[in-house]
Parts: sequence; structure tokens; C-alpha cells
Amino acid sequence: MRLKLAAILTAASMAVAAFGSDQPLKLQAVPFTAVRITDSFWSSRQETNRIASIPVSLDNLEKAGNLSNFRLAARHVTNGFTGPVFMDSDVYKAIEAASFSLATHPDAQLEARLDSIISLVAGAQQPDGYLDTYFLVKEPGRRWTNLRDCHELYCAGHLIEAAVAHFQATGKRNFLDVAVKLAGHVNSVFGPEPKRLGYPGHPEIELALVKLSRVTGDPRYFELAKFFVENRGRHYFATEHRTPPEKYDGSYWLDDVPIFDHEKIKGHAVRAAYLMSGATDVAGQTGDERLLAMLDRVWRNTTEKNLYITGGIGPSAHNEGFTVDYDLPNLTAYQETCATVALAQWASRMSLLYGDAQYADVVERGLYNGMLAGVSHDGQKFFYVNPLESAGHHHRQEWFGCACCPPNAARTIAAVGGYAYAVGPNSLWVNLYIQGRVKTPLDGQQVCLDVESDYPWDGKVTLKPTFDPPGRHELRLRVPGWCDGAALSINGQSVAAPRVERGYFVVSRDWKKGDVVKLNLPMPVRRVSANPNVVADRGLVALQRGPLVYCIEQCDQTAAVASLSLPPDASVKVEKSKWFGGTVVVHASGRQSAQLDWKDALYQSETPPARAEITAVPYFVWDNRQAGAMKVWLPVAPVAQKK
Amino acid sequence: MRLKLAAILTAASMAVAAFGSDQPLKLQAVPFTAVRITDSFWSSRQETNRIASIPVSLDNLEKAGNLSNFRLAARHVTNGFTGPVFMDSDVYKAIEAASFSLATHPDAQLEARLDSIISLVAGAQQPDGYLDTYFLVKEPGRRWTNLRDCHELYCAGHLIEAAVAHFQATGKRNFLDVAVKLAGHVNSVFGPEPKRLGYPGHPEIELALVKLSRVTGDPRYFELAKFFVENRGRHYFATEHRTPPEKYDGSYWLDDVPIFDHEKIKGHAVRAAYLMSGATDVAGQTGDERLLAMLDRVWRNTTEKNLYITGGIGPSAHNEGFTVDYDLPNLTAYQETCATVALAQWASRMSLLYGDAQYADVVERGLYNGMLAGVSHDGQKFFYVNPLESAGHHHRQEWFGCACCPPNAARTIAAVGGYAYAVGPNSLWVNLYIQGRVKTPLDGQQVCLDVESDYPWDGKVTLKPTFDPPGRHELRLRVPGWCDGAALSINGQSVAAPRVERGYFVVSRDWKKGDVVKLNLPMPVRRVSANPNVVADRGLVALQRGPLVYCIEQCDQTAAVASLSLPPDASVKVEKSKWFGGTVVVHASGRQSAQLDWKDALYQSETPPARAEITAVPYFVWDNRQAGAMKVWLPVAPVAQKK
Repeated sequence: MRLKLAAILTAASMAVAAFGSDQPLKLQAVPFTAVRITDSFWSSRQETNRIASIPVSLDNLEKAGNLSNFRLAARHVTNGFTGPVFMDSDVYKAIEAASFSLATHPDAQLEARLDSIISLVAGAQQPDGYLDTYFLVKEPGRRWTNLRDCHELYCAGHLIEAAVAHFQATGKRNFLDVAVKLAGHVNSVFGPEPKRLGYPGHPEIELALVKLSRVTGDPRYFELAKFFVENRGRHYFATEHRTPPEKYDGSYWLDDVPIFDHEKIKGHAVRAAYLMSGATDVAGQTGDERLLAMLDRVWRNTTEKNLYITGGIGPSAHNEGFTVDYDLPNLTAYQETCATVALAQWASRMSLLYGDAQYADVVERGLYNGMLAGVSHDGQKFFYVNPLESAGHHHRQEWFGCACCPPNAARTIAAVGGYAYAVGPNSLWVNLYIQGRVKTPLDGQQVCLDVESDYPWDGKVTLKPTFDPPGRHELRLRVPGWCDGAALSINGQSVAAPRVERGYFVVSRDWKKGDVVKLNLPMPVRRVSANPNVVADRGLVALQRGPLVYCIEQCDQTAAVASLSLPPDASVKVEKSKWFGGTVVVHASGRQSAQLDWKDALYQSETPPARAEITAVPYFVWDNRQAGAMKVWLPVAPVAQKK
Repeated sequence: MRLKLAAILTAASMAVAAFGSDQPLKLQAVPFTAVRITDSFWSSRQETNRIASIPVSLDNLEKAGNLSNFRLAARHVTNGFTGPVFMDSDVYKAIEAASFSLATHPDAQLEARLDSIISLVAGAQQPDGYLDTYFLVKEPGRRWTNLRDCHELYCAGHLIEAAVAHFQATGKRNFLDVAVKLAGHVNSVFGPEPKRLGYPGHPEIELALVKLSRVTGDPRYFELAKFFVENRGRHYFATEHRTPPEKYDGSYWLDDVPIFDHEKIKGHAVRAAYLMSGATDVAGQTGDERLLAMLDRVWRNTTEKNLYITGGIGPSAHNEGFTVDYDLPNLTAYQETCATVALAQWASRMSLLYGDAQYADVVERGLYNGMLAGVSHDGQKFFYVNPLESAGHHHRQEWFGCACCPPNAARTIAAVGGYAYAVGPNSLWVNLYIQGRVKTPLDGQQVCLDVESDYPWDGKVTLKPTFDPPGRHELRLRVPGWCDGAALSINGQSVAAPRVERGYFVVSRDWKKGDVVKLNLPMPVRRVSANPNVVADRGLVALQRGPLVYCIEQCDQTAAVASLSLPPDASVKVEKSKWFGGTVVVHASGRQSAQLDWKDALYQSETPPARAEITAVPYFVWDNRQAGAMKVWLPVAPVAQKK
């Protein structure tokens, strides 16, 4: 499969024009199947995922009726549909997560369970390939009549993604055949005339079709993805809903302007990031300069003005999405788990396209913070909404009526190795530092890289590459954006001024067997400020260590969270704890604001704050112990407290 | 005059019922004419007032056309009126200021100038007593047709106040006769049926008529004041402007509800405070419990939720008045000089009514801060609007098209001694500590009190009372609300636990010649916080020393005002400077926020603030040197600075 994909990319790259100063590099991701993870951080989370989150998800899909919808559809029953319109997609994402897990942790019981669910899904597919239980059971005869709201193409996209994953993981075609049949049906309906104009109300199928095209080598799926991307913004939804275009605000669906004309991120966050992911796939292959320019503009707007420090997007519950630039409230942050996943997917695609470390920085920020927070430490409870501050009443739930997030986090954790490496011309790129081994073809040769590290708790990384045959190759090591003073040594010799390109150390040499590269990424606790335009964070500071954003939870404090502040000169120390796999805890010399009894007073003498130790834990850890208040952004100065 | 007034009060007090727990005490103010000021603080300001502000005001009244309006009216010319509808009132306030000044600083030239202006005014008075040049010159025949907007009764009130002051200062009746004739005319028009219902759009005449009643002993003027106060809120303005009452929002004029029913301060700030002053005069004399209860409610609402730390009121330029509770913005603070004066007048009346130190606290806060800021150090420029923060573009002006503020500050400075003392049954009350001497009758005897102090720069006050004949009397010394640890000694003997009543030290003894009372009011620099409900002051602190609120001006700083912060543990020292009459300057160890170059970054490492000395000067001093930024409320924590 990799070879087929490489062939497609190579052919396409010939036609690509340079965009701006960033010549697209078009790296290829090393698939998660080629990555073995042996660290204490991700491997334990993947194990929890396998033994808890994935089975729990499958159980919940049975309980919530997602699977029964397929049974009804298979029996041509036209009533009894349960749940929202996009119920099928949760099943597909769970299959995808389970498939990813199977690929690295063979599990006969899980594989059998998957096959049984896949039969169920396949049994509901119509002879013409159509498959969407909502329309089959609840609205028969109304297929493709409400693309804007009814998620048919979205569900199809998740089916395709899951089928590709299942095929990659197991080599079995039972699900891929369903996907191919469905994609063929979709392709028979939508496309240039005489087929229909149309595109998904909720993007997703675009990136899925690109995956299917790569796996099958069939360019028609890519062409269909390109069609969905490039026609978006032609006010199809206004037509579909019989609204005069001038009265129609399509921004929620990113259908307000032609796809090429977006200036900023907008609308529903997950829709936006999935669309941009698909558009990046398409632009990477076509080299369309207008699309590339749009992606660059929207990327910058997203990451420079609309990104939570925890790597998530979408501040508002109102539209599950964006409002105005720099609107990043903390207590009411929506930051849906799915949106963090979606942004990481987009960022990863941008990273492959340009090979600039800023993109993998966003991948890392999202994976280690916003995404991981989406699942409890025991893997059995989930966040849909991820605020950066809580008064103590926000907790993970066992499941949701709209259950998109749990399997989305599960599939991301299971496939995290897929975000770590990429290959370019004669070069192996390391984007995430995860202990383990990667083996991948490289320009017709083989490279094996062993990585030793306690990342993200420690920034020392030992890399032992074996090129077969040995020779002159490049190792490109991402220097994280959060890191000052990264140092490199080769075979014990410090490299005085390592070559740096687009944020990567470039180690180009005639490699010999036994070569050892050591990277040191210092991880002091950093006090981070937000751009002053972010009103919600004015006068506040966040603690970050390495890639991890920290928060304070009430259960670790000696004073009320609301009363704590962290002056600029606060001393800070770290402690390696025993819980949650050796979590590094931060202790800081904070202040506790005095509680003033204001009664009827308008002015009174300030009461100096008392000293109070503040204990901070990684954001993803929160809400795993006693319920209580939580804050990522801490006041630098004492906050007036009312008695 | 004092005896007449005392007689009126004594007769009235018999009928007064107790209000709440505060039995009205109904003290009598010791008139400014009985107070000699010999300190360095007020005496120099009174001298500047006499040689600069008052002549400058009179000159400007000539230039701006205020005086020519009188000349036109005297000649029955009906065109050529200059300026806004209330032009006459500025003349009257200037006469009042000049009269107060004459009383303590005889000045033949000024007295002659006044007489000439008074002749001009008198010459314009109509045979029936009517006098308002706007209607005489510009709208003849339309007298009393627009009480709401046209300030006729307001101007009449200022004429009366000025005439009373001129009579008190000079003993001459030339202006008082004009006032009596005008008051008689007003009284012939307004009152119970068959006279007309009506009251002023801009209150002022109520308190003026009470003064006139006291000076002349004629109770009709008091009755008319009572009529204006007690009928207010009967929607007269809706009738006058032919608006159905249900469609009429009279809150700007405090005409929305019957006067007895106000729950909070509202509308135009100067209107509100003058009305409350008049209502306090009336309630003090009638003992009307409903009116007293209203005054108590509105007072508490004003001082607990709507008072600037500098003693002013009225946050909004939109209505020159109030918005919602706790709305006290700094950069856009309106805080008109006249409103500070008006509130001090009301507070002084409440102080006399109840003898509780909280009221004189507000008098002091306003006089030493908001009011004094209204005039430049050279006495030649004036603030109308008094923000608590400036980017550097707000400066005193030579005069205004609406020139109410300059003469209002001038008359207040000239008569400041009148706020300092009061007498009650067998007791002399000291409200303000100003070096000098007061001589006043007390229960048919005489008391002379010599005061030595460098107040407000120093809190040590030596008081040498001489009662003639000696005997048992009370000296009541206000312990300022800002003061912790006030100490008292008598003839060198420290008083261990002085008796305190309603915020006053009560020194009751058989006084002997040569008795010396020493009061020590410690004046450390205080860090003051605002109630957390004041959004504008959250995270900010103000410096106060004694009664003076401090600010920082750019010209005293080594770093940009906007970059400075004052951490809770900042050390503070004071320095007695040589300028502005020995101003005490505060130096504090502040912080200078780093200027971060944000470019396109959304998050970046905090840069610790540098140390920076902050120099603060009294608020009233600001904008007398180099133009530049100013702030009263300083951030406790570093503020993000953009490069």
C-alpha cells in the first residue's frame, strides 16, 4: 500500500507549483502499523484504550441502539430508528479505533467482535451500495435530500475511513468491500454533470475518499474528494433549502464563499477542520495554488488567533465552533474533543505538505493536552466539552446521546504512532518523540530507528538509526516550538551549531551501524502568556512543561482555587510522582488572596495575600480524582475575594 | 444671622421624629466667615483663587458674553443673546466666589468690580422681580414655559445663593434686595393652588431658598423650597412637554417617581446632588420621615455603589450622570467638577443632620481630591471632566462654552472653611483639620479654637480650645474613615481609650484656659482596593495617604505609565517635596512589564517584569506639569505590553 501511495504522490508532485516561500515538500507519513511503541506514556494509554475504552464504546453502541439500527435496516424495517441522524458514524469510528488497536495488539476476541459488527453493517447495505440506517429505517425514499443537515456523506466518510483502517490492520477485505461499494454509489450520484452537485453538510468524506483512493489505487475516489472540496461554497445548501442565496448565511457549514476564498476559520469547528484536512489532501495532490493559499491563510488565522493553549478549537457551545478572533474563554470553552482530534489531523497533513515544525507543534499540543483530556485515566469516561476552567461541576460522562467524541479519542490514541514519523527524499523525519521503534522503507532502502526516551516527562531522547544499507541519509528531528536550548550530540560528540531547517535539526551524514544521536530538549517549567488580544487571559499565566500544559485542581491545593495567584517571581519546582504513570507534578510558591468582608464598602485597604503552595498537574490529568474546581490560566496578581 | 438661623432650627427640631437608629442631631455649620485659615495648603489655594481664578472667571464672563446678556436685557433688546440658556448662573457663581473671598480677604478692587456687576444684574431685573436674560432677550413672553430644559429656576437659585454670600461677606444689601425681589416673584408664580405646580429641571433653587430663608428669617422661602422638593416627581415635565406620563422617562431629571420613593441615585449627577441637598435642608427642618428615609437610601446607594475614590460622582458623559451601580470606569470617568462640589454640599448637609463622621468623610474625599483637581495650580485653567486615567490628551482648559465648573470650584475653595466646623448642643465639632482659628457662639457662650497642623501632609493636629467662660463642654473630633490608630492626648496625657461616637472622638471635660488637645492621625501610604463589583478596578490598587488619593503621572516615571504595576509586597516611602506647597510624593518599588513582540504569536513565554520605581503624586496635582499619561488605579500584576 505504501508503494502505491508513493507512486500517486510522486506523479502528482511533478505538477505542483511552489506556494509562497514554502515549497511543498509532500512528505509521506509512516503508517502507525510500522511504529512500535514501548514507552510508559502512550503504551499504557493504548492498553487502557484496548481493554477499556474500545470495549466500553462497543458496549455502549449496543446499548444506545446504534447497532440495532443496522439490524432494522437489514430487515427492511422502517420504524424504530434510535438516536440522532449520525448514529452510524459512531459505530464506524469505534471499528476504526478497534482496527488500529488490533494492528499493534492482536486480540482474537476483539477481532471476532469486529467481524460480527462488520457483518451487521454489511447486511444493511443496499444492492446499489447505499448505506445509511437513518434514511433506510426512518426516512426511506428521501436519500440525499438534505445533505446539509442529515450527515449521510459524513457517515459514509467514517465508514470508508474505518474500512481502510480495518484493511490496513487485518489485511481482510470484508469491510473494505462495503466501503468500495458505498463509495462507488456515492460516486454514481455526485460529481460533474450529468451527476449531481452536492457536498456534505459535515465534511469528512473528502479525507476518507483520499485514503480509499490511496489504499485501492483507484483515482476516481480522489477525483470525487476533489469534487466535494472544490465545489464547496457554491451555495448548494441554499438551493437545497430553497433559500435565496442572499438571505442565506452558510458560514456554519463553510458554505458562505467558494472554498478558495476563505480568509479565516469559521463555523462549526469539527466541520471546519475536517474540511481543511480534506482540502489539504486534495491541494497536496493537485498543487492548486488557490487552495494552498487558502489553507495557509486559514491555518494562520486558526493557530494565531483561535487556538486554545491545550490545542483545541471552537470556543462556543452555541455553534460548537468559532465566534470572533481571539475569543478564547476559559470557563465556557467548548473545545470539543472531536475538534482537537480534527485539528491534529489537519495539522498533520500540513506537516507532511510543508515539513515545517510549526505544524507538528500543533499536532503535539493537541494530542498531549486537549485530546488526552477527552478520556478518563481508566478509559471508561469521556469529555465531549473541554473547558480550561471549572467551578467543579464539569465531569466526564460514560456516554453521550451525541457520542462522536469517545470513539474519536479512542481511534486517535490507538493510531498515535502514525503522527510520529514521516519520510521524504532520503530523509526520515521525527515529529513526536515516543520510545519504541519505527521501520520504514526509504527511497527503496530500509531504515530502522530505535528511540529511547521518557518523553513527555523528560526531554532527553536517544535515537539509534540503522540504515540498510548504510550510507548518506538525513535524519530530521523536530525542535519543538516550546523548547529553548535544544542540544544535539552524535556518538557522544556535542554538535555545536546543528543545522536547522523549518524547525528541524537536520542530521545529514554517512551513517554507520551503531551511530547514536542524542537530543536534549530542556523542560523547565515555563510561564506562558497569551496575546493581549485574548481578553479572557489578560493578567493570567499558564504553566507549561515540555509539551504539557498544566492546570491546578482543587484536590491538590491548600486554599480555594479561586483565591490562588502566581506572582512573576514565584519559585517553581517539579516532582516526579508515582501516579498516572509517573506524572511530573509542579509545585510553585503562589499567593492566597485574602478574603475581604466588603459588607457595604466601596473601597477598603488591601489585605496582602498570604503565601500558598500551588500544585499543578498536566491538564489531561484533571477530573480523575476528587471533583473540584480547576484552572489552566492562573492570575498573576491576587484576585479580590468576597467573604 | 446665626442667631436667626438657630432660632428657626430650634423651633423646627421640636417636631422632628427619630429616623431609624440615627436620631437627627441637626448641628449648625459654623459659617466660613468665622473661620480663619492660616495653613500652607488651603490658604495658598485661596490666595490663588483670589488673584487668579476669580478675576480670570470675571474676565471670561465678559469675554464669553455672559455680562453683555445683562446689558441687553437692561436695554430691553430682544436679540443678540449669547451662549447657552444658563449663562446667567455662571455670573452668579462667580459673584458668590468673589464674595466668599472678600469675606476673608478684603480687596477693595474686587469689591468695586463686584458692585459694578451687581448693578448690571440689578439693571436687568424686571419691575415684577423676574430676572433671566435668556428669556428677556431671546424668548420674551415665554417665561416659565419650559421649566424642564431652560434653567430659569436654576439661574434664580444661583442668584439667590450668590446674593446671600455677598450679604454675608460684605453686609451690603444691594444684591440681596435683588434676590428677595426675585424670590418674591418666583413665590408669586409657584406654589399650592391657585399658584402653579412646577419645579426646576435643574434643582438648585431649593437649597438657595433655604439659605435665603435663614438669612432673612422669612419662612415663605423655606415653604417654597419645601414645595419644590415635595412636589417633584409628579410628572410635571411630562405635562409641560405634552407627553403621556407612561411614555415619559423622567429619571434624568429625577422626575420619574415621587420624591419620597427614590431608591437610588440616578440621572444627571449635579441635578441629583443639588436636589438631595435641598431635600436634606427641607427634611432637616420638617423632620419628614419619608423624606429622611429616602435620603438615607439614596445616600447609601450613592456612596456604597456610585462614588469615585476621588469623591466625585457621575461616570457617564452621555447623561453627565449615573448608569448602573458599580459602573465606575476610569479612562472615561466623567466626574464633573460641579458634581463633586454638589456631592460635598449634600454630604455636608447630611453631616450636620446626623453628626456621623461618614458624611464628613465624603466631604473631605471630594474637597481634597476631585474638587481641587478642577483647578490648575496657577488658578487659570479648569477641568470640567475629571477622568481617573488619561492617555495624555486630557487637559485643563481656560474656559468652557458651558462654564459651570470653574466658578463652582472657585466658590468652594473660597468658602472651604465653612465645611470645617459645626456646633451642636454644648459641643464644637471639628470635621476638617485646617490650621487656623475658629470663633463661634456656643449655647450663648463663646468658643475659640486654635488649630495647628500640616494637614493633609501630616496627621498631627494640635487643638487649643478656649471656652468663655470656661466650663464643661464637648469637643468632637472626627476620626477620618481612612485612619487606623488615631490617638488622642490632653495636656500631654495620652487618652487610653477615647470615647467614640458616630466616628468622632468625644472630649468632654471641664475646660481650663491653656488646655491642649493633640490628635495623631497616622498617615501611612495605604493600598486601597475597590469592591470586586467594580469591574473597572479589578486587579487594580490605588494609593492613598491621609485624605489624598494619589495618581501616577508620566513625567515622574522612568517607564511608560501603561507598563507599570505595583505588586502587593512593593516597598513604599514618602518624600516631602518642595513644589506645590510641600507636596508629599510617594515612591514605590514597582514593576515594569516587559514589552513582548507578539508578531503573530498567540502564546509565548512570559518575560518577567523589571523593577521600576513608581512615583505617585496627589490626584489634584495632575496635569500641572508636562502633559502625559496618568492613572489613579494601578495594576497589581504586570500588564501584557505590546511592542
